[in-house]
Amino acid sequence: MSFKRRLFETLEKGQGDDTLSRRFDIFIMTMILLNVAAVILETVDSIHDGYPEVFNYFEYLSVFVFTLEYIGRVWTCTYIEKYRHPFWGRIRFILSFMAIVDLLAIMPFYLPLLFSIDGRVLRILRLFRIVRIFKMGRYSTAFNMIVRVVTKRREELLVTLTIVFVMLILASSLMYYVENEAQPEVFRNIPETMWWGVATLTTVGYGDVYPITGLGKLLGAFIAILGVGIFALPAGIIASGFEFEISQRIREKERKEIEEREKN
Amino acid sequence: MSFKRRLFETLEKGQGDDTLSRRFDIFIMTMILLNVAAVILETVDSIHDGYPEVFNYFEYLSVFVFTLEYIGRVWTCTYIEKYRHPFWGRIRFILSFMAIVDLLAIMPFYLPLLFSIDGRVLRILRLFRIVRIFKMGRYSTAFNMIVRVVTKRREELLVTLTIVFVMLILASSLMYYVENEAQPEVFRNIPETMWWGVATLTTVGYGDVYPITGLGKLLGAFIAILGVGIFALPAGIIASGFEFEISQRIREKERKEIEEREKN
Amino acid sequence: MSFKRRLFETLEKGQGDDTLSRRFDIFIMTMILLNVAAVILETVDSIHDGYPEVFNYFEYLSVFVFTLEYIGRVWTCTYIEKYRHPFWGRIRFILSFMAIVDLLAIMPFYLPLLFSIDGRVLRILRLFRIVRIFKMGRYSTAFNMIVRVVTKRREELLVTLTIVFVMLILASSLMYYVENEAQPEVFRNIPETMWWGVATLTTVGYGDVYPITGLGKLLGAFIAILGVGIFALPAGIIASGFEFEISQRIREKERKEIEEREKN
Amino acid sequence: MSFKRRLFETLEKGQGDDTLSRRFDIFIMTMILLNVAAVILETVDSIHDGYPEVFNYFEYLSVFVFTLEYIGRVWTCTYIEKYRHPFWGRIRFILSFMAIVDLLAIMPFYLPLLFSIDGRVLRILRLFRIVRIFKMGRYSTAFNMIVRVVTKRREELLVTLTIVFVMLILASSLMYYVENEAQPEVFRNIPETMWWGVATLTTVGYGDVYPITGLGKLLGAFIAILGVGIFALPAGIIASGFEFEISQRIREKERKEIEEREKN
Repeated sequence: MSFKRRLFETLEKGQGDDTLSRRFDIFIMTMILLNVAAVILETVDSIHDGYPEVFNYFEYLSVFVFTLEYIGRVWTCTYIEKYRHPFWGRIRFILSFMAIVDLLAIMPFYLPLLFSIDGRVLRILRLFRIVRIFKMGRYSTAFNMIVRVVTKRREELLVTLTIVFVMLILASSLMYYVENEAQPEVFRNIPETMWWGVATLTTVGYGDVYPITGLGKLLGAFIAILGVGIFALPAGIIASGFEFEISQRIREKERKEIEEREKN
Repeated sequence: MSFKRRLFETLEKGQGDDTLSRRFDIFIMTMILLNVAAVILETVDSIHDGYPEVFNYFEYLSVFVFTLEYIGRVWTCTYIEKYRHPFWGRIRFILSFMAIVDLLAIMPFYLPLLFSIDGRVLRILRLFRIVRIFKMGRYSTAFNMIVRVVTKRREELLVTLTIVFVMLILASSLMYYVENEAQPEVFRNIPETMWWGVATLTTVGYGDVYPITGLGKLLGAFIAILGVGIFALPAGIIASGFEFEISQRIREKERKEIEEREKN
Repeated sequence: MSFKRRLFETLEKGQGDDTLSRRFDIFIMTMILLNVAAVILETVDSIHDGYPEVFNYFEYLSVFVFTLEYIGRVWTCTYIEKYRHPFWGRIRFILSFMAIVDLLAIMPFYLPLLFSIDGRVLRILRLFRIVRIFKMGRYSTAFNMIVRVVTKRREELLVTLTIVFVMLILASSLMYYVENEAQPEVFRNIPETMWWGVATLTTVGYGDVYPITGLGKLLGAFIAILGVGIFALPAGIIASGFEFEISQRIREKERKEIEEREKN
Repeated sequence: MSFKRRLFETLEKGQGDDTLSRRFDIFIMTMILLNVAAVILETVDSIHDGYPEVFNYFEYLSVFVFTLEYIGRVWTCTYIEKYRHPFWGRIRFILSFMAIVDLLAIMPFYLPLLFSIDGRVLRILRLFRIVRIFKMGRYSTAFNMIVRVVTKRREELLVTLTIVFVMLILASSLMYYVENEAQPEVFRNIPETMWWGVATLTTVGYGDVYPITGLGKLLGAFIAILGVGIFALPAGIIASGFEFEISQRIREKERKEIEEREKN
């Protein structure tokens, strides 16, 4: 087998008895998780200031690995039927979602080398490395499931989210009119009242904004009782879509097991 | 085709290959969405004070369009079997829900021209323009669905809402008795204690009102554990009604697709 | 028909074409709702102080009506197979749940006439009139349904409530140990920490009690993520029990309609 | 029957007509519940200081009973097929989950006798007695059910918990960047921002941390509307797993009843 072919199979998600490919998957997965941990922990001053070089060296190593991985993927993608053409296939591969994620994952390192970037933007760039978490999408069932659920149920999600927004707009407009006079600072305008609307209708209820007039409380009570059910709709769509995916996976597993037993 | 007929078909929701009618739908839909945005943004002083004429001119334009639309609909409604009669049919059309919404949507503009109205009422009238959002009902699946769910499940909703209110009354009466002495200002009477009841049983929990005595906390804990399930009932009815509508729509689509395939 | 028989049928829930009985049901139902409203509004000083005699006279009228109703029911209960025996049947009727509710509904009026009662207890007694809401149980589908759901699912509710309490005890014990040192006043002992536990696990989250140490927040986060699902179990049992009752009622209705159609 | 055999059957969960064994179960169950109550109430100073000896003597009695129970179980476990071997069987029994719980339940008493332990650790040890609640696992359906549900659905729980954590990390990273400048003390770093994330996405919403900038509120609103559905997924998995267990138990009961009827 050519080196290019071997590299391709190693980079692809490992299957069956390809030990090298599976070890590589575990290595990349570990790198991703460590990177996510690094981005999170770096924001804790006491941790970052204690070991600044550790974070720097780990970043160099990560970018090195992820860059090699990216180049390797672009080089070998021609083995995939869809991206077979040496030039146009590669262009299309580069524009695929996962390849863009791979590129975005290493960008925050290379950009400051290419352009002069001021401190504030640099900070955003460092934080932007959190995008590396999406590289997990290649390996994680969880990512694939949520993508499939959202794709399959996208129409229903759109319908329910429309209802949610109409509900939010109506509730906030009414509450704005009722409470604005009593609390002009808090219910200052409809967009700010929407903050109350979201906090109430999702039942988060921080307690930074709430009606204080009698009419406002009455309205707020009705909105809460009726609206909470409306706001639970998208959650319900996602949950039932998920349950469906899971039950299908279980059935597929069982089918496979039966088939294997019948073979033997 | 007569002008009246052409106008009727343009105003009606566009179907199939009637490009003009579909473009008109998109135009009206855009007008509605912009109007909702305008009502919301107008309440933000910094935005309103920056471009007061923009809001005014847009309002003139909107009322002009919506008025022509309303007149057109009343004129051409006789093409609908139900409203065939030139006089009584039109009266019945004017009293239909969507026509009332159309009228309410332009009313806030015409009323101050007809009657002398003081400033406070004027402000309510301006805000009342939010009712234009219901004009979306002609085009939006989301609106139709929620109406159908509430209509179909109205009996169950009534039953569960009764339970919710009984629960609320009992919980608030008990809590009023237990906490009134310790916090006479907050748990001043049963209606005010209901504000606590709604905040607790919907799990919003703003934190402006909560029991502080030992007995009050014990009672509050029991009410929360047992009552949250009761308050989730109407939400559950709406959610399951919704799921049913959606699954039916999917099945209908599939049936149509199969029929079309069988034709070919 | 004897007067006693006629009275019995009037007191019983009206069926079919017994206009008198159905009018009586509506009358009693209205009395109950007005009584509940009176108990609630009486606690609002501005309303009570404005019309103190109205509340008093309405109370006299209500007790008069409910007393006559109670006497009537005890007198005529012998028409019911179960309570046929003139003496023992009546005793058993008096000890039935709905008869006890009927008695408790008028008790708060008669007790102070029989015994000398000090002011504090009098106040409890007045509030106790809220029990009249349970008299609705005879007429309301909602009441019957909730009773049937709780009865049928009582075993599952017990199992899930056990889990809820174990979860609450474990979460509160752990949190007490972790936070007690940092907030000795708030997390003073395990029972008081349970107030935090209930507020968190039901997701009410008033915000009067929350962990402030790093370890406490970590523990609180894990408890919230894992525990919310556990606390949703009893609600889920009630909701699914309810859905089942409702779907059965709909099926029964449809069966009746089909049977009637087949008759014709 | 030998004493050892009789003891074994008494310690095992009582079945059918073994009155002694069933009485013993009730006795142990009562001891466990009283112990849990004791641990909880001991932390209330006013109760503990009132009857310090009662708590001490009850602890002596409990440890005595639980120690005898533990010795008895280890001695007689050889009657169980799995632990038949006099030495290795017993070792394996001692390492089984319930036996470890039994040992942990009495440890807090014996450790201070064997080792010199300072006051702080002693306090933890006292609280550790709450582990005795898990001894209920032998008798309680609730415990067995939750264990079975978590075991059966462990894969789905893992998938959804992964999604929950990714969602939490992304939401908190974004919010940290947006709000850190305006509230450097509250949104100090990503781990601390996760406390906001958990409070929001579980809808607990204590109100100790919330965004105050316009952009932060906009982001918070989107996260709340979209994220609440994601965070409800593990709860949904547990609930549906539970419902399945319960419906299976009911079906099994019905099958048994039918079988018994058919026998007669």
